[in-house]
Amino acid sequence: MLRIAVLGCGRIGRMHAENIHAHPRAKLAGVFDVVHAAASDVADKLGVPRFASAEEIFASSAVDAVLIATSTPTHADFIEAAVAAAKPCLCEKPIDLSVDRVKACAKAIAGTTVPIMLGFVRRFDTGHAGVRQAIEAGQIGEVHQVTITSRDPDIAPDAYIEVSGGIFRDMTIHDFDMARFVMGEEFETVSAVGARLVAPALMRRCDDYDTVTVTLTTASGKQCVISNARRAVYGYDQRVEAFGSQGMVISENHPANNTRLYGASFTDRKAPLMNFFIERYAQAFASEIDAFVDAAEKKLPPAVGFDDGLRALLLAEAAILSVREGRPVNLSEVE
Amino acid sequence: MLRIAVLGCGRIGRMHAENIHAHPRAKLAGVFDVVHAAASDVADKLGVPRFASAEEIFASSAVDAVLIATSTPTHADFIEAAVAAAKPCLCEKPIDLSVDRVKACAKAIAGTTVPIMLGFVRRFDTGHAGVRQAIEAGQIGEVHQVTITSRDPDIAPDAYIEVSGGIFRDMTIHDFDMARFVMGEEFETVSAVGARLVAPALMRRCDDYDTVTVTLTTASGKQCVISNARRAVYGYDQRVEAFGSQGMVISENHPANNTRLYGASFTDRKAPLMNFFIERYAQAFASEIDAFVDAAEKKLPPAVGFDDGLRALLLAEAAILSVREGRPVNLSEVE
Amino acid sequence: MLRIAVLGCGRIGRMHAENIHAHPRAKLAGVFDVVHAAASDVADKLGVPRFASAEEIFASSAVDAVLIATSTPTHADFIEAAVAAAKPCLCEKPIDLSVDRVKACAKAIAGTTVPIMLGFVRRFDTGHAGVRQAIEAGQIGEVHQVTITSRDPDIAPDAYIEVSGGIFRDMTIHDFDMARFVMGEEFETVSAVGARLVAPALMRRCDDYDTVTVTLTTASGKQCVISNARRAVYGYDQRVEAFGSQGMVISENHPANNTRLYGASFTDRKAPLMNFFIERYAQAFASEIDAFVDAAEKKLPPAVGFDDGLRALLLAEAAILSVREGRPVNLSEVE
Amino acid sequence: MLRIAVLGCGRIGRMHAENIHAHPRAKLAGVFDVVHAAASDVADKLGVPRFASAEEIFASSAVDAVLIATSTPTHADFIEAAVAAAKPCLCEKPIDLSVDRVKACAKAIAGTTVPIMLGFVRRFDTGHAGVRQAIEAGQIGEVHQVTITSRDPDIAPDAYIEVSGGIFRDMTIHDFDMARFVMGEEFETVSAVGARLVAPALMRRCDDYDTVTVTLTTASGKQCVISNARRAVYGYDQRVEAFGSQGMVISENHPANNTRLYGASFTDRKAPLMNFFIERYAQAFASEIDAFVDAAEKKLPPAVGFDDGLRALLLAEAAILSVREGRPVNLSEVE
Repeated sequence: MLRIAVLGCGRIGRMHAENIHAHPRAKLAGVFDVVHAAASDVADKLGVPRFASAEEIFASSAVDAVLIATSTPTHADFIEAAVAAAKPCLCEKPIDLSVDRVKACAKAIAGTTVPIMLGFVRRFDTGHAGVRQAIEAGQIGEVHQVTITSRDPDIAPDAYIEVSGGIFRDMTIHDFDMARFVMGEEFETVSAVGARLVAPALMRRCDDYDTVTVTLTTASGKQCVISNARRAVYGYDQRVEAFGSQGMVISENHPANNTRLYGASFTDRKAPLMNFFIERYAQAFASEIDAFVDAAEKKLPPAVGFDDGLRALLLAEAAILSVREGRPVNLSEVE
Repeated sequence: MLRIAVLGCGRIGRMHAENIHAHPRAKLAGVFDVVHAAASDVADKLGVPRFASAEEIFASSAVDAVLIATSTPTHADFIEAAVAAAKPCLCEKPIDLSVDRVKACAKAIAGTTVPIMLGFVRRFDTGHAGVRQAIEAGQIGEVHQVTITSRDPDIAPDAYIEVSGGIFRDMTIHDFDMARFVMGEEFETVSAVGARLVAPALMRRCDDYDTVTVTLTTASGKQCVISNARRAVYGYDQRVEAFGSQGMVISENHPANNTRLYGASFTDRKAPLMNFFIERYAQAFASEIDAFVDAAEKKLPPAVGFDDGLRALLLAEAAILSVREGRPVNLSEVE
Repeated sequence: MLRIAVLGCGRIGRMHAENIHAHPRAKLAGVFDVVHAAASDVADKLGVPRFASAEEIFASSAVDAVLIATSTPTHADFIEAAVAAAKPCLCEKPIDLSVDRVKACAKAIAGTTVPIMLGFVRRFDTGHAGVRQAIEAGQIGEVHQVTITSRDPDIAPDAYIEVSGGIFRDMTIHDFDMARFVMGEEFETVSAVGARLVAPALMRRCDDYDTVTVTLTTASGKQCVISNARRAVYGYDQRVEAFGSQGMVISENHPANNTRLYGASFTDRKAPLMNFFIERYAQAFASEIDAFVDAAEKKLPPAVGFDDGLRALLLAEAAILSVREGRPVNLSEVE
Repeated sequence: MLRIAVLGCGRIGRMHAENIHAHPRAKLAGVFDVVHAAASDVADKLGVPRFASAEEIFASSAVDAVLIATSTPTHADFIEAAVAAAKPCLCEKPIDLSVDRVKACAKAIAGTTVPIMLGFVRRFDTGHAGVRQAIEAGQIGEVHQVTITSRDPDIAPDAYIEVSGGIFRDMTIHDFDMARFVMGEEFETVSAVGARLVAPALMRRCDDYDTVTVTLTTASGKQCVISNARRAVYGYDQRVEAFGSQGMVISENHPANNTRLYGASFTDRKAPLMNFFIERYAQAFASEIDAFVDAAEKKLPPAVGFDDGLRALLLAEAAILSVREGRPVNLSEVE
């Protein structure tokens, strides 16, 4: 049994703690949160210890691995601490909002064999992963165009938006990772447009956008389009489509249930989409823990590594520059 | 060019006339209806002669073949006339409401090589035909269970119901033919239940039912279920499903268009189903003319023959007996 | 926290134990199995005690409620023991294969206020439950026809078939309960046909069927059709459709993932259906525990009661008689 | 009856002739083609005169209106001739490959009240039109993002590609019109990327692309993405999606039939998409004639006018410039 401690007991940390608790080959070693009451709550419910500090976790011989679900500015520090303590680590995205900090972290942990896994959870969704598997199995030939639609059910609270780093670093970053995962090839140029259609005043205040379209191209001309919006009234819109020389594969949305209704003025009506990521990606979050346990047990490079976190962040930087300057940006400009 | 005359210029006759007019290898030779104005209307629109009588058509050397879309009681007479005149004939279903009359007609035309085709149009629907094709191609192995759902968008006018011969002879008869077509094997027993849920007073007056379920079995135990209702508020519900040892094939409904709507309380909402048979089976009616032209040109037995009309009617008789006596009926009881 | 002990650590018992372990308002009090190793395995994994006997559980003050997942012949005894011990009980279906034993059990526990819940898990599937909810919300008007398709991905091992009590008591029983749940009205007649198309020799030896169609009618003429087969190569086929005076509602199948593939000879191809009930009804099994915890905490009649178990069994008896005698059976004949 | 002559008897002209022939309020007045045999073939089949020249048509008092389906370089001349002859005209797209010629034509016919309709047939597809109707009915609120996927089943012959004017003028032009139609607002910027992935040698020779992505934005920041490819092995991929503040509406693809197949390794498999535009847009081509007859009879501005042809061409010009210079282009640069 891999003994995993969870740092951060917010909504995501708590969910990870429960998934670890339920995992057949893992054991929840304990939890920590700077808000002690949040940690106590989880600890009591699941019958595990509450740690007094993050340091205590990294020092504990009763902890084999750590899951980092604390606030973004602590991520890089904790990754470095995990490597120093030789504890495999699963860290929520992003590594940091600053590319420089991420690069410094990369330098600090360079050469480590401690598995460091990034929480790009969507790679573990059976639907999205099915897209990649179909590609790898040669079922659609060579990939030519990837289309990612990713819209939140509603805009996050102002307080979150204000510190999120902007839509590209906070929301599109998942899609940048998905684009790389599905395309299986690095992108060379990024061209983005942004609009303020959902919450114009807030967006102006934060110099942010709520509705964006990003086009990515590879050196060979392959294309990826990402459509994001901060509010889709019908729920959490999460689709991935790959078009290739021999076919196409699509990962579809998930309505809240599988019921279809017919009435006098309509047919085939389904429920709104699952809302929100905890529900929609429940299976993916559980599978992510599975992959982490695998990597930690076998000391193997995890499915999603530190460099994936950096690459996604660089794409976000390029998109920000593209919108600001109204022109396509070459990745080399931000690397 | 096959010169085809149309007898009967009601809604169906008119549609057939237009399809013949538009067919690349056929020519509308003229039309007839006991209501001369109805015939004149079609004749004028399409620029073809109006015949003064059915007899004139059968006697005309300018007519190669006939399409019979007159009222049911005339069908058998006209089929006999067509055979006598050596004119290939496409006759709307049913041949007659009386099994005895149908058998007499069969006797009268026994041994003829003149192609006599029955208008079981649904066999020509690309979806339903696709079910049969999948079976013939071995794609679902041996057929074990067939499920046919067939519901009209609304109940016909009282005047029609009163002379229709009842739901089994008028509506289910299409499904009996579809059941035989898809199963590819004759049925041995028929078990039917009927209810009066849509228009109870009318149904009682006509000793008829508006909601029925029929189970058919073959000698080898294979099963078919037909669900009928005289009113489906969401449109014309027309589905065929065949389940077999190696798979399943389903012919789906046709919404009025291919648009899907998403809103705050629903997703994937489509339009009501196409309404009614002229729209839903437009492609099938055109393909039916195609098959008839083929058979007439080549003097070959048509895809749907006189005997298919008789077999469907016998299944209807068995269903009527089954509901009346509350027991399964063996086909041999009504043959 | 409701302390629940699990009796029976086979595949289903183990899953229930894990669901209780993970439930926010329940605690797994311990497990028991006549095969001690099976119980120890679960106990060790989840860190809970293994009880030495069922008696020990019923006597324990550390157990508030029980879940019975032992072999069928023990169910009625354990239900009686649970009532005697005043411990709310969730019992897997069926109560017993013998109607007499079930009636005796009913007599033995008559008048109890101890919540006794039956494990008709499908009622808790969000899709199937959504059908019932749509009906209760008046979204399809009055229900006229219910269609249930229920096919296993593959036939169970011979050893299971030999003691299962036959397809109607073992497999269709779930559909009988679903039919009652969806129709919201008791059935009056049962008419069933059965065939031996999947495993003829085994079926003959067991006097059983592998492919059956059952038609149920209510006193008012409403109709329900159940289609069962013991092997569907494409996976676990689980669909429920209710057609009513104002619309229709369908609970659809669940492919293993939400990916659709397009190639040179096909489009929209999905994965096989989830296989088997533990995967397909994972959400429903978890929700079932939820409902049980609710009922036990509040000492309220559970969503699915003892009488529901009896009613489903009586429908199975009627179906068996119907197939044997080749005629519709009135429920009053078997009550 | 509106008497319409058809100029051009290639594949599209012939189809238009048949649709006019079948139309209840129109009559085919005759046909013309520079290849007389092509015109004779259609004339004989449909029993109408063959005109000896285009001039004869424009001069004929037996012709009320004209349909222009000749080669692109003749379109503008014939439009001018139609206006001069006061004959309403339905002209296939594009008006011309040269913006200058189109502008000259616009000047030549300025102020005319003769209805001039452009053949952007997709606007008449019930699915795509349904998207626009949903928007106009307020069903999705304000449109924020439009996504158009448009892929041909296979690349056209080299000879066609060589004179087509390039993918943006030949293929994307339909999507530019659809984008304007659905968005209901003019675009301000065009940003396009292109690749040579399907037929690289041919594309290089023609300075053309086979795989392109175009992003359009309006002054208010609303976004439209068009994905084109010259070969989709699964058929003619034609989808339109509009996302808005209150919902989303999607016009879906059309498989060749409505059958779904289930087997041991898949479920829900449909046929390839309809192939090609004559089949896929059969309903739309017929409705287009309907709209033209309406406009011609009532002397009203047609649903799709000359200016729509110009606007689409300007978007194509901007896309070409964008790809060439690797930057977003403002429409004002090409107007």
